[in-house]
Amino acid sequence: MTARRQPVVGILGGGQLARMLALAAAPLGVKSLVVDSSADACAGQVAPLVVADWTDYEALERFAARVDVVTFDFENVPAETAHWLAQKVSVFPAPRALAVAQDRLAEKTLFHECGLPTPAFKAIDTRAELDQALAMIGAPAILKTRRLGYDGKGQFRIKTLADADAAWAALGAQATAHGLILEAFVPFDRELSVIAVRGRDGDFRTWPLTQNWHTDGVLSLSLAPAPDIASLQARATGLARTLAEKLEYVGVFALELFVKDGQLLGNEMAPRVHNSGHWTIEGALTSQFENHVRAVLGLPLGDTSARGLSAMFNWIGELPDAAPVLEAVDAHWHDYGKEPRTGRKVGHATVCAANAQQLVERLAGIAHALHRDQQADPAVRELG
Amino acid sequence: MTARRQPVVGILGGGQLARMLALAAAPLGVKSLVVDSSADACAGQVAPLVVADWTDYEALERFAARVDVVTFDFENVPAETAHWLAQKVSVFPAPRALAVAQDRLAEKTLFHECGLPTPAFKAIDTRAELDQALAMIGAPAILKTRRLGYDGKGQFRIKTLADADAAWAALGAQATAHGLILEAFVPFDRELSVIAVRGRDGDFRTWPLTQNWHTDGVLSLSLAPAPDIASLQARATGLARTLAEKLEYVGVFALELFVKDGQLLGNEMAPRVHNSGHWTIEGALTSQFENHVRAVLGLPLGDTSARGLSAMFNWIGELPDAAPVLEAVDAHWHDYGKEPRTGRKVGHATVCAANAQQLVERLAGIAHALHRDQQADPAVRELG
Repeated sequence: MTARRQPVVGILGGGQLARMLALAAAPLGVKSLVVDSSADACAGQVAPLVVADWTDYEALERFAARVDVVTFDFENVPAETAHWLAQKVSVFPAPRALAVAQDRLAEKTLFHECGLPTPAFKAIDTRAELDQALAMIGAPAILKTRRLGYDGKGQFRIKTLADADAAWAALGAQATAHGLILEAFVPFDRELSVIAVRGRDGDFRTWPLTQNWHTDGVLSLSLAPAPDIASLQARATGLARTLAEKLEYVGVFALELFVKDGQLLGNEMAPRVHNSGHWTIEGALTSQFENHVRAVLGLPLGDTSARGLSAMFNWIGELPDAAPVLEAVDAHWHDYGKEPRTGRKVGHATVCAANAQQLVERLAGIAHALHRDQQADPAVRELG
Repeated sequence: MTARRQPVVGILGGGQLARMLALAAAPLGVKSLVVDSSADACAGQVAPLVVADWTDYEALERFAARVDVVTFDFENVPAETAHWLAQKVSVFPAPRALAVAQDRLAEKTLFHECGLPTPAFKAIDTRAELDQALAMIGAPAILKTRRLGYDGKGQFRIKTLADADAAWAALGAQATAHGLILEAFVPFDRELSVIAVRGRDGDFRTWPLTQNWHTDGVLSLSLAPAPDIASLQARATGLARTLAEKLEYVGVFALELFVKDGQLLGNEMAPRVHNSGHWTIEGALTSQFENHVRAVLGLPLGDTSARGLSAMFNWIGELPDAAPVLEAVDAHWHDYGKEPRTGRKVGHATVCAANAQQLVERLAGIAHALHRDQQADPAVRELG
């Protein structure tokens, strides 16, 4: 018997995604090492934490020496940091893939190259270009920063052309630093996401499509597998595979899609494990977190089949009472160990069931006990 | 929104059970703090570790001040340590329950009080008493230390009466410190265990009976739910409940049983989460680890139903190749992050399936790929 060395995954960012990655890594015998600028980053409760910011190259040098591979909890790690690390240690997804996903213009351009249509869009650098773009795209439309946006941040909804001044007042100052993009607002029928994983050897898998509902730009509820997706699953999987292969992507990513009149439109890509894939912890044979760890380490990928039906409540701001979830059958509580704060993702709960009727009962029962019927309603209606 | 304080569970002992308890505690928002005399205890990879031995009361004082409740990874924590801690902080299971389970004589006496027969036994303090006991019980029989035995340690099998001298040579020196007990060897038909949990409010649940196979006194393979247990499940659950109520037990425990001619005999009780319950991580709606954390914190207990069928391979000494498990459908790898060592429990793998045929295929496929057909054979035959 020879002594062993356990692989170490370095994770940039120490939020709930890093926390759940570290919890999934441990049973594989994989250690995690997390970097975050905050000493109380919640992933630090379950894995060692290096407190450093993205330009602290001395700390990052020591971090890189301690890990076998680097990955991300947070996609807005500066490209320079990712490139610098990639010269010292394997980084997955590669900085190039990260850069595309960080830029709404590059991302949408790539979607088109892959054969995935998107809502009309136009890059904008000046106030005059905003007027030109509005003339072309019309209202309603959404003005967004090209970079550093997530969860509805860095966005302004233009309901009528008269909102152009207000939009520019809100985001114009960021035009130089981050660039802006105007996107047509599509009154979509459904929002879906495909969570996909690609291994270092090119093995590619997707979990069943997830249907999502947002409130104030933040995910509120997910349902998986999304009902009635017979024709959409194969198309979404094909698009995700093309995208992953073009980027030589390694790891888990999410492709957010709109469904409009039965067609798929590309919304955005998240180059990491994704909130709409949290249901996979209990609801799939292998979770997105475990498969991401497997992918970046070059281990075989696990089966991505769903066990049954799952729905996920997101807890935003502060946690509700845990008891109705703990008492329900096949319901699973996830407290990220964070302090409450308005708009912050502090936890989630996944409810699993063997069939739609059972899921509706469990979902509605929990929502009712928590006085959150509204949060569950869209899925209850969809499962109807 | 008010600041919160996450509950902290203190765990005495930092082995794989503490490690899996800490991994189950984290999603509940519960922090763990582990005590072990070894700085490289494997639970220290996933939770903060206090390095101290069981008589380092200064360290234990600081430990007690940092936790809300204390529990055990290891049942042979000295009774004095458990009693001392119980004066400062809640300890579950209570030291009294621990003391009974630490002593094979007290344990078997309790089994009889609960209406659970056992193999014939007799306490022994001297060489003369061994002869008297052998005359009464006959051979084959097993001489064991009353305390501090586990995984076949502190045991000597007496095949014929002529082995008495050898048995006394092996264990006689421990008669004064730990006491000895002679137990009749029962040629049992099956070995089962019932994993049970009792909450602080008295709520009591059992997981489906598990069938176990040992090699050299160490668990090799478990199968759950054990096949053909119609009449035994209710009896085993009733016995476990009586036992738990007599001890005012809080937390998870295992009751190991022999089946002989359709009757249940009590073998031993483990006052903690148990190796034969590891399958519950993926194979049950709530794992033994999560329910133990819930129980000791006074949270509602989760449903203990099985999802389907599960089998667990124990990895002893060193880990086999992970690939055949990682590649199999619904198979789950557990590497405890330990250095290899002869006889050491270093990991396990759980294989789940919807039915017996599917489980046999997956189990036999993995065993064959690992050249460990023998390890899987008993379950394959039982399911056959």
